[in-house]
Amino acid sequence: MFADRLLDAIAEKGSPICVGIDPIFDMLPDDVAGAETERDANDAEAAVDAIFEFTIEVLQVVAPYVPCVKFQSAYFEKYLWEGVEAYFSLIHEAKALDLLVIGDVKRGDIGATSSAYAAAQLADSPYSLHDADAPDAITVNPMLGLDTLEPFTKVAKDEGKGLFVLVRTSNPGSAQFQDAKLADGRTWSEMLADSLAPVAASEGLVGSSGYSSIGAVVGATQPQTMQSLRKRLPQSIFLLPGYGTQGATAEMTHAAFNEDGRGAIVSASRSILYAHRDARHAAAGDWRKAVESATLAMKEDLAHIR
Amino acid sequence: MFADRLLDAIAEKGSPICVGIDPIFDMLPDDVAGAETERDANDAEAAVDAIFEFTIEVLQVVAPYVPCVKFQSAYFEKYLWEGVEAYFSLIHEAKALDLLVIGDVKRGDIGATSSAYAAAQLADSPYSLHDADAPDAITVNPMLGLDTLEPFTKVAKDEGKGLFVLVRTSNPGSAQFQDAKLADGRTWSEMLADSLAPVAASEGLVGSSGYSSIGAVVGATQPQTMQSLRKRLPQSIFLLPGYGTQGATAEMTHAAFNEDGRGAIVSASRSILYAHRDARHAAAGDWRKAVESATLAMKEDLAHIR
Repeated sequence: MFADRLLDAIAEKGSPICVGIDPIFDMLPDDVAGAETERDANDAEAAVDAIFEFTIEVLQVVAPYVPCVKFQSAYFEKYLWEGVEAYFSLIHEAKALDLLVIGDVKRGDIGATSSAYAAAQLADSPYSLHDADAPDAITVNPMLGLDTLEPFTKVAKDEGKGLFVLVRTSNPGSAQFQDAKLADGRTWSEMLADSLAPVAASEGLVGSSGYSSIGAVVGATQPQTMQSLRKRLPQSIFLLPGYGTQGATAEMTHAAFNEDGRGAIVSASRSILYAHRDARHAAAGDWRKAVESATLAMKEDLAHIR
Repeated sequence: MFADRLLDAIAEKGSPICVGIDPIFDMLPDDVAGAETERDANDAEAAVDAIFEFTIEVLQVVAPYVPCVKFQSAYFEKYLWEGVEAYFSLIHEAKALDLLVIGDVKRGDIGATSSAYAAAQLADSPYSLHDADAPDAITVNPMLGLDTLEPFTKVAKDEGKGLFVLVRTSNPGSAQFQDAKLADGRTWSEMLADSLAPVAASEGLVGSSGYSSIGAVVGATQPQTMQSLRKRLPQSIFLLPGYGTQGATAEMTHAAFNEDGRGAIVSASRSILYAHRDARHAAAGDWRKAVESATLAMKEDLAHIR
C-alpha cells in the first residue's frame, strides 16, 4: 500500500520532502563530469556515466533525511536506450537505500496502449534483470479520460503501488487550459479533481492511514487554487513541484497539508542537486556537502509551516 | 518541412493512410513468434527479436502503398531499454524504405524537462549511432499549457519536423474532460484548437502547400466535433486514429478532409498488423499477404470518400 508506506517514511524521516532527480550533464559538478570547458555534450557514454555516478552519490547523501526521490524520465530518455537502462538501474539503487521512488513519466494513452505503459513504467517487470527496478509510483497525465487511468490504477491496486495524477501544474502557462472556466463555475482542474476523488476513494486503494495511493500533482506555485483542490481530493496525497528554483516558498505549500500535518510532499530538484552553484550552500564544502546543506535547509524551512 | 513532405508522400502513394506499429507479442503470427502455446511472455529477448522481425516485414509489405507509419512507443517501452533500442532501430529501417515516421509518444512536460523530451524524442540525436534514427514527427500532450509545447515547435522549425498535438482523442471516455463545456460555450477541446491555430500558423512552420507542420490528433470516432475542429485549425493536418478496430468508418473521417481532398491522414493499427486473424484477409495467403490485403482494402475504402 503505497500511501501508507509514504506517510510512514515521511514520519520516520521527519520531512515531507521529495528530491527530484533531474540530472543535466552541463550542470554537474566538475569533479564528477570533468571541467565544464572540456565536456563533450555529444559523448553519450561519458554523460550517462557521469549522471550515474552523480545520482548514486546524491541518493547516498539525501537518504538519511528524505523519504522519497522522484526520477525525471526525460533526462534519461535524452540518452536513448542507454539512458533508459540507467534510469531503471538507478531506481534499483534508490530502493536499496530504502528510499521510495516516484517515476516522473507523465504517461497517458488509451486502451491497450495504456496497459502497455502501466506494464512498462509502473509494474514490477518480468524483464527487469540486471539490478533494475520499477518505481513505487509514477506520475500520469489524465487528459485522455478517466478510462485511460484504469490500467494504472489496476497495477497500483494489484502491486501496492501509487499514482500521482496531474491536476494543476506549476508552469507559468498552466492556467490557460487548466484554469479554463466551465459553464458550471468550476475550473477545468476542479472538475478533474472532482472526477478523480471517487477513484482515489475506491476499494483497495485507501490505506489504514485513510489516505489513498492515488495522489495528485499540484504545483506549489498555485496557492490560489490549492485550497479548493485540497477540499475536492481529501484522501489524495499532493505532490507539490515548484519549490525552490521555480519560486514557490514553504508558506505557499501550507494549504496543501491537512490539519493533521499530513497529505502532501514537497518536491525540489535543481535547488538541491545543483546546490554547489548556490553560494549559500557551496560554502559547506564540496558538492556533496552542498547537497546536504540544501536538503537540511529545505527540511528546516518546511518544519516551520506544518 | 514536414507538412509538405507528408502531403507529397500522400499524393505519391495515392492514400492518406498511416499504418500504426503496435506490436503485441501475444498477437504476432506463429511463424514469427512461435506457436502461441509455446511463447514465453517473460522472455524479453525472444519477444523483442520477434517484434523486430515482424515489424521489418510489415514495413516492407506496406511501404509501396502508404506514405507513413506510426510507432507506438508503449509497446517498445514495455521491454525496457531493449525495447527502446528496437524502437529507434526500426524507425531507421522505416526511413530507409522512404516511409515517413511518426513517433506516438504523447509526451508533455514543463520548462527544461520539455526541452529534454524534445531532444530525446523528436530531434535528430547526436547519440543515435548504430543505425538508429529519430522520427519525422511525434504526438504531444498539450494539457500542461501552450508554453510547454515551445521546445517541441522549436525543434520542428529548426529540423523540418512535425508535431501532432492531442486535441480530441478516440477513446470511449474522452468526452468527460475534452468535451467539458466552457462558460463561453466552446468545449475544452475547441478552446484548445483555437489556442493552437496561431501556433500552427506561425512563421517557419507553414509549407508551400499552405499546411502547417503542427498537426492535430482527432479521433475518427468523433464525427460530432470534427467539423468544428476542422474549421478552428484550418492549416493543421489531422491524424485520425480509431479507424478499423476502434469502430470508425471511412465515412466518419470525411469531415476531417478539406475541400481539396487534403488535410488528414487516417491511422489504423491492429486491423492491418493482425489481419491474419481476420478471415476476410487471412484467405489471401500467409500473414504478409493478409497485411497487404488489409492495407489495400483500407486504401480502396478511403478512396470512395475523398
